[in-house]
Amino acid sequence: MESLPLAFWLDLLGTFVFGISGALVAVRRGLDIFGIAVLSVAAGLAGGMIRDMLLGATPPTALEDPRYLLTSLAAGVCVFFGHRLLDRLNKPVMVLDALGLGVFAVSGCHKSLVFGLDPLPAILLGVLTAVGGGAVRDLFVAEIPRVLREEVYALAAMVGAAIVVAGGALGLADGWTAAAGVVGAFAVRVISVWRDWRAPRAPGS
Amino acid sequence: MESLPLAFWLDLLGTFVFGISGALVAVRRGLDIFGIAVLSVAAGLAGGMIRDMLLGATPPTALEDPRYLLTSLAAGVCVFFGHRLLDRLNKPVMVLDALGLGVFAVSGCHKSLVFGLDPLPAILLGVLTAVGGGAVRDLFVAEIPRVLREEVYALAAMVGAAIVVAGGALGLADGWTAAAGVVGAFAVRVISVWRDWRAPRAPGS
Amino acid sequence: MESLPLAFWLDLLGTFVFGISGALVAVRRGLDIFGIAVLSVAAGLAGGMIRDMLLGATPPTALEDPRYLLTSLAAGVCVFFGHRLLDRLNKPVMVLDALGLGVFAVSGCHKSLVFGLDPLPAILLGVLTAVGGGAVRDLFVAEIPRVLREEVYALAAMVGAAIVVAGGALGLADGWTAAAGVVGAFAVRVISVWRDWRAPRAPGS
Repeated sequence: MESLPLAFWLDLLGTFVFGISGALVAVRRGLDIFGIAVLSVAAGLAGGMIRDMLLGATPPTALEDPRYLLTSLAAGVCVFFGHRLLDRLNKPVMVLDALGLGVFAVSGCHKSLVFGLDPLPAILLGVLTAVGGGAVRDLFVAEIPRVLREEVYALAAMVGAAIVVAGGALGLADGWTAAAGVVGAFAVRVISVWRDWRAPRAPGS
Repeated sequence: MESLPLAFWLDLLGTFVFGISGALVAVRRGLDIFGIAVLSVAAGLAGGMIRDMLLGATPPTALEDPRYLLTSLAAGVCVFFGHRLLDRLNKPVMVLDALGLGVFAVSGCHKSLVFGLDPLPAILLGVLTAVGGGAVRDLFVAEIPRVLREEVYALAAMVGAAIVVAGGALGLADGWTAAAGVVGAFAVRVISVWRDWRAPRAPGS
Repeated sequence: MESLPLAFWLDLLGTFVFGISGALVAVRRGLDIFGIAVLSVAAGLAGGMIRDMLLGATPPTALEDPRYLLTSLAAGVCVFFGHRLLDRLNKPVMVLDALGLGVFAVSGCHKSLVFGLDPLPAILLGVLTAVGGGAVRDLFVAEIPRVLREEVYALAAMVGAAIVVAGGALGLADGWTAAAGVVGAFAVRVISVWRDWRAPRAPGS
């Protein structure tokens, strides 16, 4: 993957923050150290694996490069020893989840464009990559995934992915476009929670 | 996919009706417009994506062709504005689900045969394609999937897929075989609900 | 897959025992004969399908070779008629699940090494293969997967996969290494349940 250094670092960052979010959920559920490891690996790697399986980029980078596994396990170890510190921060799972959401939306969309997908499907796969890890994490503890419960979640991922598509169409540098996409998705998600944005429901529902 | 026009139109029809069923579930759960979009896309596209990932036909047609995404989103929009009309019809989710079941069973089996699978595995993949979208829809709202709860569900998909295999073995035209498969699966499913067919349980259970 | 006769027989054995475990769960939930068939196929084939999709070995062996489907259906039939006998045995789901866990951990890791994965990712994919079928089985009946609930589960799979990697590195014969891996994973799992091993929780959780 030397030709995709940007995607590599984005993936690794997303793997770490989703790994943290998975491990925090595991600690709150009272799971043991192995349950923590399973949920940090599942939350950290599932989004990228789904992306790569759908692109036909197999084996997924998360399996070809041991650094992904080690990164998600490192996230689990950090939470095992440091969860009390993380819990003192306000809504840590939400903020980390928002960061992972932005990072994976950008990396998923970016890699889809590299693999020749059209803009709309590339945005879709960016969203899928972004919500995949969290959905697996939530399904494993029998919760309705955040992507359905939260008002502005898939939309935030869509914003991040759309910025990547727009930046590519405008010929901007990949690095700046990626940064803008991550910041855009993260901002939309965090502000929506902070300001308690409400999305419309079906009339009469 | 110009070589598979039949599979294309079947897929698009199945995407639409499963998209409707996903969106109706979302409205009933009181989800907002983004939750509706997520469930209509998930229910509409998951079956075909699972089929294509298993066949190695990546990226899946649902990602290569933006019409799939637009079709499932259109289903969500129809439900957003028209769910009161749809609710007045009797058991609309069940009937649409039965139609999607038949369509995807046929398209999954047909594409599996084109990719050279043997008859039995082709039927299995047809069933998987057919139950995949609904299973993802139900898992996302933390319900036991319809394929387990309902008496005659996987069996209906199997009938549709088996008709495709039989039609192919008899050298019948693809179009007629596909139509017969959809009608067969749909009829078995709807009649089983209507007549309240009961399947046997394990003796002594 | 004539070049992988060992993996073939391991896969078939794992398919059968996970098929039994899935069918037993279905009978306990009072599902009908089709629900039993769905859960025995899902539990029996999902792990290997996930493995093959991640390796890019598509279509998966479970779809290329009808014997996999027939094996998992045979497991369902055995349970349909014989579940009272199986229930008289102590903790039959746990023991069969442990055997399937070991078999799939070994087969997943072995096939990953054949496909050129590094040792760490090969162990990860062995664990994924081993826990995949059971996770799908448990998610389908809306239970938190065993891999999260149980103290020593992913660890047992990891032991089996690590033995395969170690045996390969030492140049031992595949057959003996595989047998040692299955026995190792099975023993760790069963002894952990029998002796009620407890894994550490995060300090202060």
